[in-house]
Amino acid sequence: MPVVTFLPAGVSVEADPGTSLLDAARQANVPIRNDCGGQGICTRCQVEVKRGEVAGRGSGGGLAEGRFLACRTLVAESDLEVYLPEETREVETEVTLRRTDPFPADYPPPGAMVETVELDLPAPNLDDNVSDSERLVRRLRKWRDAEYHIPLGVLKDLPVRLRDAQWRADVTVSVEPWGSRILRVGRPARKKPYMVAVDIGTTAIKAQLLAPEAGWVASCYNSQVMFGPDVISRIIHCQRDEEHGCPALKQLVVQDIERLIAALLDAQGVEREDVWALVVSGNTTMIHLFLGLYPVWIRREPYVGCAYLLAPVRPEDVGVNINPAGRVFCLPAVSSYVGADITAGVLATGLGDRKRPSALIDLGTNGEIAIGCEEFLVCCSASAGPAFEGGGSASGTRARPGAVESVWSEGTLRWRTVGDEPPVGICGTGYIDLLATLVRERIMDKTGRFVAGAPGVVQRDDEFLYVLAPAEQAAGGRDIILTQADVENLVRAKGAIYAAGSVLLESLGMDWGDLETIMLAGGFGDRLNKDNAVTIGLLPDVPRERIAFVGNTSLQGAVMVAQDAANYWKARDIAGKMTYFELSTHPDFMDRFVSACFLPHTDTEKFPSVSAAQE
Amino acid sequence: MPVVTFLPAGVSVEADPGTSLLDAARQANVPIRNDCGGQGICTRCQVEVKRGEVAGRGSGGGLAEGRFLACRTLVAESDLEVYLPEETREVETEVTLRRTDPFPADYPPPGAMVETVELDLPAPNLDDNVSDSERLVRRLRKWRDAEYHIPLGVLKDLPVRLRDAQWRADVTVSVEPWGSRILRVGRPARKKPYMVAVDIGTTAIKAQLLAPEAGWVASCYNSQVMFGPDVISRIIHCQRDEEHGCPALKQLVVQDIERLIAALLDAQGVEREDVWALVVSGNTTMIHLFLGLYPVWIRREPYVGCAYLLAPVRPEDVGVNINPAGRVFCLPAVSSYVGADITAGVLATGLGDRKRPSALIDLGTNGEIAIGCEEFLVCCSASAGPAFEGGGSASGTRARPGAVESVWSEGTLRWRTVGDEPPVGICGTGYIDLLATLVRERIMDKTGRFVAGAPGVVQRDDEFLYVLAPAEQAAGGRDIILTQADVENLVRAKGAIYAAGSVLLESLGMDWGDLETIMLAGGFGDRLNKDNAVTIGLLPDVPRERIAFVGNTSLQGAVMVAQDAANYWKARDIAGKMTYFELSTHPDFMDRFVSACFLPHTDTEKFPSVSAAQE
Repeated sequence: MPVVTFLPAGVSVEADPGTSLLDAARQANVPIRNDCGGQGICTRCQVEVKRGEVAGRGSGGGLAEGRFLACRTLVAESDLEVYLPEETREVETEVTLRRTDPFPADYPPPGAMVETVELDLPAPNLDDNVSDSERLVRRLRKWRDAEYHIPLGVLKDLPVRLRDAQWRADVTVSVEPWGSRILRVGRPARKKPYMVAVDIGTTAIKAQLLAPEAGWVASCYNSQVMFGPDVISRIIHCQRDEEHGCPALKQLVVQDIERLIAALLDAQGVEREDVWALVVSGNTTMIHLFLGLYPVWIRREPYVGCAYLLAPVRPEDVGVNINPAGRVFCLPAVSSYVGADITAGVLATGLGDRKRPSALIDLGTNGEIAIGCEEFLVCCSASAGPAFEGGGSASGTRARPGAVESVWSEGTLRWRTVGDEPPVGICGTGYIDLLATLVRERIMDKTGRFVAGAPGVVQRDDEFLYVLAPAEQAAGGRDIILTQADVENLVRAKGAIYAAGSVLLESLGMDWGDLETIMLAGGFGDRLNKDNAVTIGLLPDVPRERIAFVGNTSLQGAVMVAQDAANYWKARDIAGKMTYFELSTHPDFMDRFVSACFLPHTDTEKFPSVSAAQE
Repeated sequence: MPVVTFLPAGVSVEADPGTSLLDAARQANVPIRNDCGGQGICTRCQVEVKRGEVAGRGSGGGLAEGRFLACRTLVAESDLEVYLPEETREVETEVTLRRTDPFPADYPPPGAMVETVELDLPAPNLDDNVSDSERLVRRLRKWRDAEYHIPLGVLKDLPVRLRDAQWRADVTVSVEPWGSRILRVGRPARKKPYMVAVDIGTTAIKAQLLAPEAGWVASCYNSQVMFGPDVISRIIHCQRDEEHGCPALKQLVVQDIERLIAALLDAQGVEREDVWALVVSGNTTMIHLFLGLYPVWIRREPYVGCAYLLAPVRPEDVGVNINPAGRVFCLPAVSSYVGADITAGVLATGLGDRKRPSALIDLGTNGEIAIGCEEFLVCCSASAGPAFEGGGSASGTRARPGAVESVWSEGTLRWRTVGDEPPVGICGTGYIDLLATLVRERIMDKTGRFVAGAPGVVQRDDEFLYVLAPAEQAAGGRDIILTQADVENLVRAKGAIYAAGSVLLESLGMDWGDLETIMLAGGFGDRLNKDNAVTIGLLPDVPRERIAFVGNTSLQGAVMVAQDAANYWKARDIAGKMTYFELSTHPDFMDRFVSACFLPHTDTEKFPSVSAAQE
């Protein structure tokens, strides 16, 4: 079998002929930058072949002499030496820290998932000589009536701890499905137990530290992107490599979370051992991969996951490095394609507590839609893909410093980046603005095709594309562009979401106009331009005040659960009562989807304000 | 610090001056034979000092030239080389296998602590696409309504297992305090889950394999004996060596149990992975040490243990090598000195189900007494010491082949050994017979003193002792003897038990005569001679038919729990409702004890049949 050696690291791996260099690098655990998951789109996996013969079509097409795309270049019969240029080694593992409102000084509040209570215990005597564990549990029951479990690790030196604390001990307890668990007993400690809330997105991972006066959200790309931009390609990887696939993906996400935690702790000056809980949200596949649950049947009809309602586990069981006696709580999912992120979103927005029906649309890598009020909750998934997170597009990026986040026309197109940094790429809100502006300026037609000869439209490799910012203005020395393939991706994504919502509403005998509020969740915040979202048909043409941005409700929900155990039960209740509609086999969905793959829609009557503006 | 090197092993350890060679060897983890726990009694820890100067009084006294007792010989200022003769290295780790009635071919029965059920699950479809875990739990609830927990290890490949089994899977579940735990899901297996019941005695450990057609009990000495013959000396060791003491003792008992399991599996041809549960009984200190719970406050007023009611743990948590997904169940204790062995005994004998009060006397290393009926259950502990288990006596041994198990007079004293092997020592029933016969033959007086000049009584080192079998008849080449110290030990032990029972009965306003049955538990079986036990005042002088031998009820109770989970709950109920009497501070106990330290008693009216026989 040919041996592939990656330079300058000098790591070798045997690879079957026909293996892509990217896959060989993955097998060798050599990270190669790639933002599109090996689809030949992002051109970021460029390598130089120093020795040996390769196959495939990974060279040419605008690449410098001697450069190959690792994802499109295949191992042939000979041994290879493959050099990774510096920029190819720059896998984007960078963590971004964003300030948020700090928590109060006495945070977390009583009733949190993990809390510490200071207890005075009566010292034992001959008339009251129950065991130390029973003494402790009796006292705890006076504080809060529940079942209590003392794990063996805590039990072992309980006698020493209680006496060392002279019967006035701090007891740290977590809320568990069957009762409460005692995590620590000891002398009164300076610090309350801190927690970290995590949202594992398919494209980006975010984490927030719940500690006194902490006010940070850390985010990074999900490194699993090297195995594909969406959940499907990652599930396929688990299936293709039955032995190592699932563990490899698990390790990547755990490493990412570790990095986020490290950044948060560093920013706040908190020790790992003071973090006693992770509360984790995310879509069903992401939670499966985080826990190491085999996800393969999620993508096969009838789309069945391993588990949606999950018991808490120990940090060592998942491999995260917080206090070893701490707990990892995963929020419950509804189905294989409506995950804990939506449960968390419904919790965070109070969708299920409202008098009148509203919708929650989560524009993550999968688009999910929940509609409901206090009387019902229904949901569906739209398989939107990562387009609105910057995934799979030529210049796509997440909303990090330098990402083009808004675009408008002042005769010519203008744009602004996050932090006013030189542009590194285009993020979701930038794409929405860009599409809408291009349509409005008639640089693009309603089917999404570029108009030849329009300003900014150039032809490369027999394909039209739009150059938003030329290489000399850009941070990476590459043009910031929108390709025809990018547009198709974006249109399919927005079409899927609109169609899914329409079908779900129809099945309820309702229309978009019947919704009190349409809440848009995602990383956009208030940077998303409502008119532009309607203009491209991502959102329905309803009065704009009915459209609300609700931010990352997955993370918000995880924070809410962490800080109030009542929300843990509420989330389980939400997941249990939400009805899932399977759209992939719904007879009307494909029709609705095809109709929605226009800008804004084939049925212009559905978008009167857009039609009016364009006349 | 002087360095002690043990030969022939060549293991060295630094030891403070004043440390005994036995303690130095323990620190070096070099096993040295000693049956008395380092009290200078058994003379089995003989070593030769090859180099260096020692202190202490460990030579002379019948030892061969150049021989020292390791327990009485102290490290001085110089480095030492200490040679261990072969017989000193022969730590008795031998496992004895005894045949019992085999279990039926379809054993274990339904309702056992761990059982496997074959389930047909409906395959998922689009109208029924709950998660795999929910599908499994739904089906299990139809089989037996309970809460079910699927640990992460089982959950991870649940999807693969269910499909591999084509939805007709064997599911192995254990009963847990909060519900049921799923230990395995997979293709229907040949084998039922087997279990091992264990009784951890202070002196001996016994284990029984619960498998189809298995009929073996394995037993061995508790290797912790090298740290002392009774629970107190072992607790002291934990306290003296806070860092390593408790873990060292834990490791010893776990190794012993491992050896017993190995012998049982070997005898029956069963694989370790087919053993899914240990059900463990034993006194409170033994269970503490088995689990690694810090036991130090058990021996200090007010005598408080770490925990009496214990949750099941994973095999890896205690370090036993059965199926890693299996469970270890410890039976509940009542107090620090009335352990799970007594709970198991009450369960096994049905003491708490009887219409009229009876007593259960457990003649283990600690004597414990429970008295009760369906209306009440009380108990106490008598701190008898290991005398009736052969511990701490010059020729004491457990009931193994060659142990003198009965003694009688035919003009001269006659004896019989277990298996009619050449004598290796004297076990509990042998001591009872021997004392009674010596008193009856007036070779010993009622205070336990040997009568000078009586046949068999010889004087050595200014002390009288009785030679039961001379060295030339004995297997070990040493006289089988009874020393004055042995007699004092035995008399104190029997006196403590009788006094404890008397005080407990008085506190109930009862007398020995009010008991329907006096059940004697322990390893004796029916080899114990009732008349002799009454003659020495170990048992009260009641009609002999009221005295029953019930065998090792601790092990029996563990077996009963393993084979019927209902008994698990019953044991918890027994432990919860049994009232413990603390005798160590009881005002009458010491009086009663002193009166009982005669053969049979100072108050001969309490033993009319004995007085009559001796007149």
